[in-house]
Amino acid sequence: MGSTWGSAIKISIFGESHGAGIGIVIDGFPAGVTYDEAFVLREMERRAPGRNKQSTQRKEADTPLIQSGFLHGQTTGAPICAIIQNTNQRSGDYAALAAQPRPGHADYTGMVRYHGCNDLRGGGHFSGRLTAPLVFAGALCKLWLKTRGVTIGSHIQSIAQIQDMPFDDVDIPASQLDALREADYPVNNPRALDAMLAAIEEAREAQDSVGGVIECAAVGLPAGIGSPMMDTVESRLSSILFAVPAVKGVEFGAGFAFAALRGSHANDTLYQDGNTVKTETNNNGGVNGGITNGMPLILRVCIKPTPSISVTQQTLNLQTGKVEPLSIHGRHDPCIVTRAAPVIEAACAIALANLFREANGYA
Amino acid sequence: MGSTWGSAIKISIFGESHGAGIGIVIDGFPAGVTYDEAFVLREMERRAPGRNKQSTQRKEADTPLIQSGFLHGQTTGAPICAIIQNTNQRSGDYAALAAQPRPGHADYTGMVRYHGCNDLRGGGHFSGRLTAPLVFAGALCKLWLKTRGVTIGSHIQSIAQIQDMPFDDVDIPASQLDALREADYPVNNPRALDAMLAAIEEAREAQDSVGGVIECAAVGLPAGIGSPMMDTVESRLSSILFAVPAVKGVEFGAGFAFAALRGSHANDTLYQDGNTVKTETNNNGGVNGGITNGMPLILRVCIKPTPSISVTQQTLNLQTGKVEPLSIHGRHDPCIVTRAAPVIEAACAIALANLFREANGYA
Amino acid sequence: MGSTWGSAIKISIFGESHGAGIGIVIDGFPAGVTYDEAFVLREMERRAPGRNKQSTQRKEADTPLIQSGFLHGQTTGAPICAIIQNTNQRSGDYAALAAQPRPGHADYTGMVRYHGCNDLRGGGHFSGRLTAPLVFAGALCKLWLKTRGVTIGSHIQSIAQIQDMPFDDVDIPASQLDALREADYPVNNPRALDAMLAAIEEAREAQDSVGGVIECAAVGLPAGIGSPMMDTVESRLSSILFAVPAVKGVEFGAGFAFAALRGSHANDTLYQDGNTVKTETNNNGGVNGGITNGMPLILRVCIKPTPSISVTQQTLNLQTGKVEPLSIHGRHDPCIVTRAAPVIEAACAIALANLFREANGYA
Amino acid sequence: MGSTWGSAIKISIFGESHGAGIGIVIDGFPAGVTYDEAFVLREMERRAPGRNKQSTQRKEADTPLIQSGFLHGQTTGAPICAIIQNTNQRSGDYAALAAQPRPGHADYTGMVRYHGCNDLRGGGHFSGRLTAPLVFAGALCKLWLKTRGVTIGSHIQSIAQIQDMPFDDVDIPASQLDALREADYPVNNPRALDAMLAAIEEAREAQDSVGGVIECAAVGLPAGIGSPMMDTVESRLSSILFAVPAVKGVEFGAGFAFAALRGSHANDTLYQDGNTVKTETNNNGGVNGGITNGMPLILRVCIKPTPSISVTQQTLNLQTGKVEPLSIHGRHDPCIVTRAAPVIEAACAIALANLFREANGYA
Repeated sequence: MGSTWGSAIKISIFGESHGAGIGIVIDGFPAGVTYDEAFVLREMERRAPGRNKQSTQRKEADTPLIQSGFLHGQTTGAPICAIIQNTNQRSGDYAALAAQPRPGHADYTGMVRYHGCNDLRGGGHFSGRLTAPLVFAGALCKLWLKTRGVTIGSHIQSIAQIQDMPFDDVDIPASQLDALREADYPVNNPRALDAMLAAIEEAREAQDSVGGVIECAAVGLPAGIGSPMMDTVESRLSSILFAVPAVKGVEFGAGFAFAALRGSHANDTLYQDGNTVKTETNNNGGVNGGITNGMPLILRVCIKPTPSISVTQQTLNLQTGKVEPLSIHGRHDPCIVTRAAPVIEAACAIALANLFREANGYA
Repeated sequence: MGSTWGSAIKISIFGESHGAGIGIVIDGFPAGVTYDEAFVLREMERRAPGRNKQSTQRKEADTPLIQSGFLHGQTTGAPICAIIQNTNQRSGDYAALAAQPRPGHADYTGMVRYHGCNDLRGGGHFSGRLTAPLVFAGALCKLWLKTRGVTIGSHIQSIAQIQDMPFDDVDIPASQLDALREADYPVNNPRALDAMLAAIEEAREAQDSVGGVIECAAVGLPAGIGSPMMDTVESRLSSILFAVPAVKGVEFGAGFAFAALRGSHANDTLYQDGNTVKTETNNNGGVNGGITNGMPLILRVCIKPTPSISVTQQTLNLQTGKVEPLSIHGRHDPCIVTRAAPVIEAACAIALANLFREANGYA
Repeated sequence: MGSTWGSAIKISIFGESHGAGIGIVIDGFPAGVTYDEAFVLREMERRAPGRNKQSTQRKEADTPLIQSGFLHGQTTGAPICAIIQNTNQRSGDYAALAAQPRPGHADYTGMVRYHGCNDLRGGGHFSGRLTAPLVFAGALCKLWLKTRGVTIGSHIQSIAQIQDMPFDDVDIPASQLDALREADYPVNNPRALDAMLAAIEEAREAQDSVGGVIECAAVGLPAGIGSPMMDTVESRLSSILFAVPAVKGVEFGAGFAFAALRGSHANDTLYQDGNTVKTETNNNGGVNGGITNGMPLILRVCIKPTPSISVTQQTLNLQTGKVEPLSIHGRHDPCIVTRAAPVIEAACAIALANLFREANGYA
Repeated sequence: MGSTWGSAIKISIFGESHGAGIGIVIDGFPAGVTYDEAFVLREMERRAPGRNKQSTQRKEADTPLIQSGFLHGQTTGAPICAIIQNTNQRSGDYAALAAQPRPGHADYTGMVRYHGCNDLRGGGHFSGRLTAPLVFAGALCKLWLKTRGVTIGSHIQSIAQIQDMPFDDVDIPASQLDALREADYPVNNPRALDAMLAAIEEAREAQDSVGGVIECAAVGLPAGIGSPMMDTVESRLSSILFAVPAVKGVEFGAGFAFAALRGSHANDTLYQDGNTVKTETNNNGGVNGGITNGMPLILRVCIKPTPSISVTQQTLNLQTGKVEPLSIHGRHDPCIVTRAAPVIEAACAIALANLFREANGYA
């Protein structure tokens, strides 16, 4: 109960922020997939901290050390294990953390859940650092899905209240998604980016943080993947997306905007384009009845502002039973949304790869 | 792959809209829970169609016929099966459905997924009618959770663009949730209801439909239920909430509104109230790091407008390959949001009951 | 936790011996499989009680009432539910059962497990009657596997100490398995049958019971189905075979006889027959490293003697705390091995169908 | 699909015989369990090769390098990962292995299953070496179960045809099981051991191998653990026991001997001993209806003779299509039964720990 997910492909994530290492086992990954090291390391780099002043100044190489599952540069079909060593931790005052759990964090709930035995340093197993192995697994899944014609990408839809231009949901070229992957900050509208960076900088100066939204798309999916009810594409994706720390909302297609639409505007009219059935609009985000319809899969997730902020907060001291000031020291991101894009893509890639294996078996 | 969900409590839903019957098996339900028939039938009635002019004029008793799992009015611990017979179907033109899949429905994706063998009448296994067994299971889970001090309830947060008063997320009396259950329409603000009903009526007259949002809460949950990463309370809940047809978005606590918040406002300050740790605000909706913190669990789901509308739509005829007019006849809801509240509560109750059993074992 | 099994195909069994009905939901069954009613009813009949004096004199039609999952005589891909009504129960003295749990039965462990709430009448959910829905599901799986070239069959390997001729494990024609299915008692050697029936009659006259062994085979399986370690063909099969009440041992190929073999005799030499790789012997029962090798799959299960015997037994009265005589009245089988063959085949068919779906996806 | 197992506790095993390393992730392990390094290393040593002339002369330290899940010598409740580096491999002729798959091994089935991409060196992921991480996980589970009063142990029941004295199934002191753990070879009858060692030596001189049976017991289990049908103690145990390479049969209590018993002898009479319900015999091996009854859990597994033998075998060359001689070089065990005891105990400990967590929740 905790860090294992999947059916045809099963992942098991381990590690704590200040332990020896973190990593992942990927069981059921297809055999014969070629390892593209540059691609995988680029994905890791996109998530890694310390790359610019919008993110924490901790620098961690986050190089995955592969233990198994590869031979001659190809997957063997056996479980893949990769480890990322923890090399740059500075453990804070452990006792202080136990006395005064940080607001918005899992410090308190973790203590209750694990009877006070959990590793609180750096958030332990609840740390955002645990998304690094997820990105590794996502990179492998992307490599495999690419051979099946599927491309996954994302952009920062918003930071603070500044909105990027959303995807054109009926026409997203794979090249657009690939280009976003190469950008320092994945946005569709460069001017929105300037305003976003300014908002982050403003929060940083106020020793505060800001949240945002990531919009993610997958193109090239065939129609007919997924199942009704409990194993819908949306159920599967949301169950792994909510595994990403700080995600508090997930929506598909028009999402919450559906609430204000009428059926006549919400319905996506079908038409035929050559031999392919398409829809004129894509309010359903590529999914009807839980099953892909061949249109781009579109989803958005909300990322809450980093709870670790330097500004003094008033919060409970469990030892005194009183509310007292708390100053969180250390190196924190004023905004993790810029680093979240590859993580959301990874969760999406893993869920889709799992659905693909279910749909296609050992093939 | 499809209609089975759960771990400590497992549900398996079956049935098609126009088949002999629909129903559910609930495996792993606790022994010794007393059956409150009036409570269960009231839950079924809340979801049932035909109760007022806002919903479809089909009338279905939806009486669960219990096959197993009870003795002397108590659960035995063995799997519970209940069947609801289909008695009031009028099958439309089956061939027409196969030729011209309805926009916004699963007709097309179902045909691809099941190689043309799926039952298209009334949506078959994709029908909203399949939420009736979910409500039955949810009612049993509510009965059990009630004995553990947990109460679940919901209200219509919005229909069209009309907003109800949201829950006071740090203080929701169980009596408020119980009262909402008894109401014809569960709203906190009666004036909002009038406007909602007018908006529904307007859509009905236009042969159209409208969507909305349900806000659901669970109070009385102890801190420490749930797990990090893949088995967070949010992951578990979302995976069953997205099983409800028409749900296209799920958010917890402040949800998507987090995107515009700063950390200093988003963080929920902890304090002590007697022996209980509470938070002054509840932006995290009762969950930190995937684990309950003892505050009310708050979530919202978006319900898209019913895709079945009478107004003529232009859409693909698969036989001609051309876009042609489609008129959907039959008895449809102009707004299913009013009937969705007990369904969302049921999904929530099942997920929480499952987490409770995991947390407490056979006890 | 209890009566749900499977991954790509999931079954959920419900019911209690003296409740309203028993049945099964089969989720994930392939679409487009034609229902052969005569075949399914014949399978049900093979297991049904009351057919001859070797089995209990209760007569139950065991007709599956199909609720869902079929249209125009074909599976739709939606979950299949079938119910078998309980019509011929005579409930014994319930209080007596609670006071004096029957030796060899689940009466005592069921009471501990379910805090005294379980239905003890006729064994409740622990009853051998719960194998009827398993046979129904197995019959459907056989029908599907037959379209893939796979045939499953079994014979009574032994009753008491009388041995039937085992299968020729490198050459089992599908016609042999089909013929066993049609026989009143599935044996390879008719003379062994006479001795078996005499042994059963002897036990019946002594108000006692006897056990035995079923040998089951599947032919036509391709090489390459299954996975190493936790998802071996043996793991999967054993996990459902031990779900059959009274099964206390499972072995594959040479099984326990391997203990006395040397490697040079145990190893199955490979050779090529046309384009097919075969083995000269089949000590591994068609499975190497958990994966099928294309040779017949061979397994044997031990069925313990029916614990329900009429002869007076001495056993604990929980109310007095003393060992007292117990006479179990009612209509019991002196030997259930004769009825167990279709049950073992059904478990085998379900497990193999599940593996096939995993291997081949939605196809 | 492959190397992940469990529900409340989930294990995921990775690694290939000649890769960088092998290991395991254990998710859901209880928090607060003290690490007894000497105990764990002793368990690893019991399984390790090269300790005497009955086993392979490869020497591997098999030291688990713990990556996560521990703090201050206690489990934190987060996933535990341990890695065992591969340090002493000598890769044989890879191309030869692909051409001439070894009889009795997974070489051929692995190639079919993984489209020729699997690592054949040393058996790859199918290697018996993969039982080392299982033993590590089993050792931790034993440590936890010990705090709950449960002790697990085993002895060599037979090698070749030489039988050890079986356990007294109604009275197995924990001290007996502990003593077996300390012995070089776990047997109840030292004279049987001499004959066993002679049989192994004889096989070794003939460049051959021999098989055997392990009998395993767990004492101190409370009544009421497990579930009927699909989640019986037997189903759960067998599903992980058959994950151990070379296991081809599993039986509980009297097992296959039940086939020759009458019900009146097979039934275990209940009686009361103080406040405890016991049975006078234990033919059911501590399990009725899939649920523990408080008596010792008894099971036996058959271990087939090591298929890797030095004596020349005739077998198919896939390149020529002809049967040709094969000589397997390298360092092989003439009998792995002596090393199998801790592996079987480990599988048993993991399955029981998983059942315990299900029964007791987070407690």
